[in-house]
Amino acid sequence: MILRFGVVGTGAIGREHINRITNKLSGGKIVAVTDVNQDSAKQTVETYQLDAVIYPDDKALIADENVDVVLVTSWGPAHEETVVAAVEAGKYVFCEKPLATTAAGCMRIVEAEMKQGKKLVQVGFMRRYDTGYAQLKQVIANNEIGEPLMIHAAHRNPTVGENYVTETAVQDTLIHEIDVLHWLVNDDYKTVQVTFPRKTKNAHGKLQDPQLFTIETIGGIVMNVEVFVNCKYGYDIQCEVVGEDGIAKLPEFPSVVMRKSEQLSTNILNDWKYRFMDAYNVEIQDFIDSIAKSGEPEGPTSWDGYIAAVTSDACVKAQQTGEKEPISLQERPAFYSEHILQNN
Amino acid sequence: MILRFGVVGTGAIGREHINRITNKLSGGKIVAVTDVNQDSAKQTVETYQLDAVIYPDDKALIADENVDVVLVTSWGPAHEETVVAAVEAGKYVFCEKPLATTAAGCMRIVEAEMKQGKKLVQVGFMRRYDTGYAQLKQVIANNEIGEPLMIHAAHRNPTVGENYVTETAVQDTLIHEIDVLHWLVNDDYKTVQVTFPRKTKNAHGKLQDPQLFTIETIGGIVMNVEVFVNCKYGYDIQCEVVGEDGIAKLPEFPSVVMRKSEQLSTNILNDWKYRFMDAYNVEIQDFIDSIAKSGEPEGPTSWDGYIAAVTSDACVKAQQTGEKEPISLQERPAFYSEHILQNN
Amino acid sequence: MILRFGVVGTGAIGREHINRITNKLSGGKIVAVTDVNQDSAKQTVETYQLDAVIYPDDKALIADENVDVVLVTSWGPAHEETVVAAVEAGKYVFCEKPLATTAAGCMRIVEAEMKQGKKLVQVGFMRRYDTGYAQLKQVIANNEIGEPLMIHAAHRNPTVGENYVTETAVQDTLIHEIDVLHWLVNDDYKTVQVTFPRKTKNAHGKLQDPQLFTIETIGGIVMNVEVFVNCKYGYDIQCEVVGEDGIAKLPEFPSVVMRKSEQLSTNILNDWKYRFMDAYNVEIQDFIDSIAKSGEPEGPTSWDGYIAAVTSDACVKAQQTGEKEPISLQERPAFYSEHILQNN
Amino acid sequence: MILRFGVVGTGAIGREHINRITNKLSGGKIVAVTDVNQDSAKQTVETYQLDAVIYPDDKALIADENVDVVLVTSWGPAHEETVVAAVEAGKYVFCEKPLATTAAGCMRIVEAEMKQGKKLVQVGFMRRYDTGYAQLKQVIANNEIGEPLMIHAAHRNPTVGENYVTETAVQDTLIHEIDVLHWLVNDDYKTVQVTFPRKTKNAHGKLQDPQLFTIETIGGIVMNVEVFVNCKYGYDIQCEVVGEDGIAKLPEFPSVVMRKSEQLSTNILNDWKYRFMDAYNVEIQDFIDSIAKSGEPEGPTSWDGYIAAVTSDACVKAQQTGEKEPISLQERPAFYSEHILQNN
Repeated sequence: MILRFGVVGTGAIGREHINRITNKLSGGKIVAVTDVNQDSAKQTVETYQLDAVIYPDDKALIADENVDVVLVTSWGPAHEETVVAAVEAGKYVFCEKPLATTAAGCMRIVEAEMKQGKKLVQVGFMRRYDTGYAQLKQVIANNEIGEPLMIHAAHRNPTVGENYVTETAVQDTLIHEIDVLHWLVNDDYKTVQVTFPRKTKNAHGKLQDPQLFTIETIGGIVMNVEVFVNCKYGYDIQCEVVGEDGIAKLPEFPSVVMRKSEQLSTNILNDWKYRFMDAYNVEIQDFIDSIAKSGEPEGPTSWDGYIAAVTSDACVKAQQTGEKEPISLQERPAFYSEHILQNN
Repeated sequence: MILRFGVVGTGAIGREHINRITNKLSGGKIVAVTDVNQDSAKQTVETYQLDAVIYPDDKALIADENVDVVLVTSWGPAHEETVVAAVEAGKYVFCEKPLATTAAGCMRIVEAEMKQGKKLVQVGFMRRYDTGYAQLKQVIANNEIGEPLMIHAAHRNPTVGENYVTETAVQDTLIHEIDVLHWLVNDDYKTVQVTFPRKTKNAHGKLQDPQLFTIETIGGIVMNVEVFVNCKYGYDIQCEVVGEDGIAKLPEFPSVVMRKSEQLSTNILNDWKYRFMDAYNVEIQDFIDSIAKSGEPEGPTSWDGYIAAVTSDACVKAQQTGEKEPISLQERPAFYSEHILQNN
Repeated sequence: MILRFGVVGTGAIGREHINRITNKLSGGKIVAVTDVNQDSAKQTVETYQLDAVIYPDDKALIADENVDVVLVTSWGPAHEETVVAAVEAGKYVFCEKPLATTAAGCMRIVEAEMKQGKKLVQVGFMRRYDTGYAQLKQVIANNEIGEPLMIHAAHRNPTVGENYVTETAVQDTLIHEIDVLHWLVNDDYKTVQVTFPRKTKNAHGKLQDPQLFTIETIGGIVMNVEVFVNCKYGYDIQCEVVGEDGIAKLPEFPSVVMRKSEQLSTNILNDWKYRFMDAYNVEIQDFIDSIAKSGEPEGPTSWDGYIAAVTSDACVKAQQTGEKEPISLQERPAFYSEHILQNN
Repeated sequence: MILRFGVVGTGAIGREHINRITNKLSGGKIVAVTDVNQDSAKQTVETYQLDAVIYPDDKALIADENVDVVLVTSWGPAHEETVVAAVEAGKYVFCEKPLATTAAGCMRIVEAEMKQGKKLVQVGFMRRYDTGYAQLKQVIANNEIGEPLMIHAAHRNPTVGENYVTETAVQDTLIHEIDVLHWLVNDDYKTVQVTFPRKTKNAHGKLQDPQLFTIETIGGIVMNVEVFVNCKYGYDIQCEVVGEDGIAKLPEFPSVVMRKSEQLSTNILNDWKYRFMDAYNVEIQDFIDSIAKSGEPEGPTSWDGYIAAVTSDACVKAQQTGEKEPISLQERPAFYSEHILQNN
């Protein structure tokens, strides 16, 4: 069985997924595309030599009986409407982050999905599919370090442009830690506080950089997350989980070990694209395989998208107030609880 | 375009490739299978739900017009005849090592291929597709460490069974270093000498273990290769290239970093299967993509298979004599020289 | 010239210093000892075969003309009186932490010393003499990582006894980070806030463990310091300085690298004694050499002792309030400012 | 008790030992010096403000009743005569390598010492006092890796001058591995063979560089030792012992860990002086302490000096012949056998 994708949004990330599904992975194919820019849609079909219908809009694409999955890679503000429509049509959805730009929007998707009586939606949080994070999750789940007590994490990026402002550090950067950290420890967030260290000379005027987020969970885990997007030296993701009986830490991204010019060194990546390249592939292949196998995607759910939205809002508020801000989630519906267990 | 594979040999490695092509990679499918054990062939078709014809033998399979590629995963002594027949029929061939069990056999394949006027055959030396080796090759090709002078390598395996004897260390184990090391430095072998250290208590009676191979190239590079197949502690592949201006070394296989019980540690694999898992996928995908793109496979050639056979014979002789034995290759045909350049 | 030490307090640490000065270092000797337990003093003289007068109390010892240096290793509450008396007598003082148990006490020592017109006192903060910290200081001073923006530090210990309570984490443990971190970045502290993660099952009833201290400096550097004294896995000191242009981190304590039982590992110490063994030796030798060379000790001053006391008080208060507490230092006298520059 | 040293030879290494004994260590002092260049002797006394008699030659110095130890740091060809004379006078001797320039010379010292009925001589092989090597020795002695089967070692140096020729690689460089490796595994050497890889462009005309020594022991251990003295990138000592049950390797020389300019790096030393600085101090302090404690030095003996001389001669011969050369030691006298056990 081949899973037939209709793609809404043929920008950079849309094209990458199209290329991935067409040329690298197994079990899926692109049968329909649409974009607000119809030329982009046409050009994409040509570039990747797709045997795909070009639709004028997402509604038409969703209506196509040949489309099994709607792959949502349009710009963020458009996500909610497309996802709700696709879910109501009973289609599977793979939606890049954010699931919706507001917590209320995410909740509308959650409700639409529950009404369908089965899980249809996966959100594009690819880190869970990174080998390092997967090993870390396993180590914790196996009780190799006892109960987690603290997490020390860092998300560092060499440089950002002028349109990246203080809130962007939450919405585009921290958002990945927001998803992956609660998943790692299987806990829910309670509060967040932000501290701004001295600003680096390498950040432009509208951006406070670096930032330190202190996040506490319901279970009492304290997470320090450094976000530093003009660190200059490279793209570097660090995550260390301190448990009662030991500590586990993400491996460094592997690279040839050099002895040269009085230095013993390995390379640090300079671009985020390379860091999670494999994770993107595994993520989509797992989405395809899970649906083929069990009829449901098994990755990050609509509820995870909702958690990300609520937490992200609280983090932005904490940036503004300097105070410890609550992260107030509604009660998790039983509908979404099985999934957590499966993921362990 | 989908490349259509006919598989000769449905044992363990044949099935892994079938699964890979069917469920993980893109651009290929299995359309025919055969095995000396017809039940195995039938069971394979069922297990992987293949839409494939089951043939009584390799000749019939090769004759099928729907077969573009013959994937040779039968036992070693049968390789030569299948490969020659497939090449003479103008089919592409992906053949697991050894290409043939003798140098003369490899040469007959080389000659058959040259007669066809284009490259058809790729030999399954997957290490070239490992990220670490690929980076090492790049570092050398970029002249980052100057001219290579020495290589220190080790191939360690936790334990082997009774049927693994002293020569097996060359034919099944060292064979991978034989292929990858000359490729790394783009040089040809000249001599080999073997030293046997004190035998480990963990090796059975018919096996000298460990063994140290000292291999010299035409260009004067000296390679020390340790083969130690009852090292107990894990499966561990080491390769360090010492150049005039610096040294480059394979990265350790990545794993979560633990602090526990007074140890800072990472895991070492206990089984070779995990070490080159990705390399096997990349190898086959590259084979498919290269044929789709340029009409020729771009991996290890029949000539590389011939080099492996000649070198392997010399290594076995060196085990027996204790002397420095010559590795005498025929002159490389121009037909196979382009490839080396492409590979850089 | 041999520097003549009179030792006040012949407990464990007093004896270690006596052994060090007598049997490992050069340029010093023990000529007098005293202890509230006179038997301990006598036994010490015998054990180390010292040619030393045993005095009934610190006053008598200080009055001995043969004593150049008073080495204060009595219990903390007694330090202030001994140090003030020694300074007023114009003697050099090497005083183990704390310099005094209160900020006011430290200030009285500072004033007594300033009245003498030259530096006489060194406080036993040995970490500054650790090779790793010294390298870290050099890297920062050389501007190799630009201006420091953040420090991530951890002080982990395998286990503590019943008498170690929540405040002890500041007074006996964090105190070392308090001294070394401001010295590293040549800055003064401004505020501190404490977060208590979920308590480890391995801590006894009266102890909150682990604890996270967030300390901000006048210059805007934010320091996260984890104190975890029942971490079980070993004694482990981590310190990473994040600068505008790069990051520098303490090396792991060196140990033989093992490949065994599917693990690549190095040892982590299980006891703090081994971690700073060399630093203790370098500290005392430097104290002796500096006095011989320039007539003044060049290590941590009375003012550094005062900083430690004020900061320690604020940290304990922060443990109790949960709020961000100010760290209010008096203005640094010019008398103590040269030293900082020398230390760079 | 203070051990009184008379120093024969006040060149660079002589002065370093004088400084060490005078200003860094405990329990020794310099009471006499001599040098063929009397001005050097005088200048040394002044520089280090020694209270020492300047003698016209070694005989006069040895005759001084105040001299307990003769420290031999003259040039190599003069060692034998001084050491024999000192031993015959019943004095302790600390002699820098080589003990004598010929095996016969070493044997004459061995015999003189045996005639005195107790161990008097220690040879300056400082590596045994390096923390890393000491740990490695302990790991092997504790049977943590089972019986040693192979050693992979490398001795790399950034660059050498014109007076360093092919044999110098044995006499000045490999000589340290020759001493430390047999000590590590408590075994004796049997044969050596040399392989010359392609010569680096960075070596001058009279020097074959790098060189690979394959040394076999009586017990069957095979050691590969790379000597590469124009490796450019730094001073780097590697030693990995492969045992039946695991592998142990010298730690890298510790240094601050940097993340900068897309590299994760530590520093490699550029000069041998820094690598074994601590080992030199420990070596001399241990020499002093052992004599104070047991009346005999416990470090490398005259017999170890003899082993080094015989092995060094065989290595030079192997450079010339290209053949496997025997390393033929006389039988070890019982007089020197205890020591090996003590060293374990």
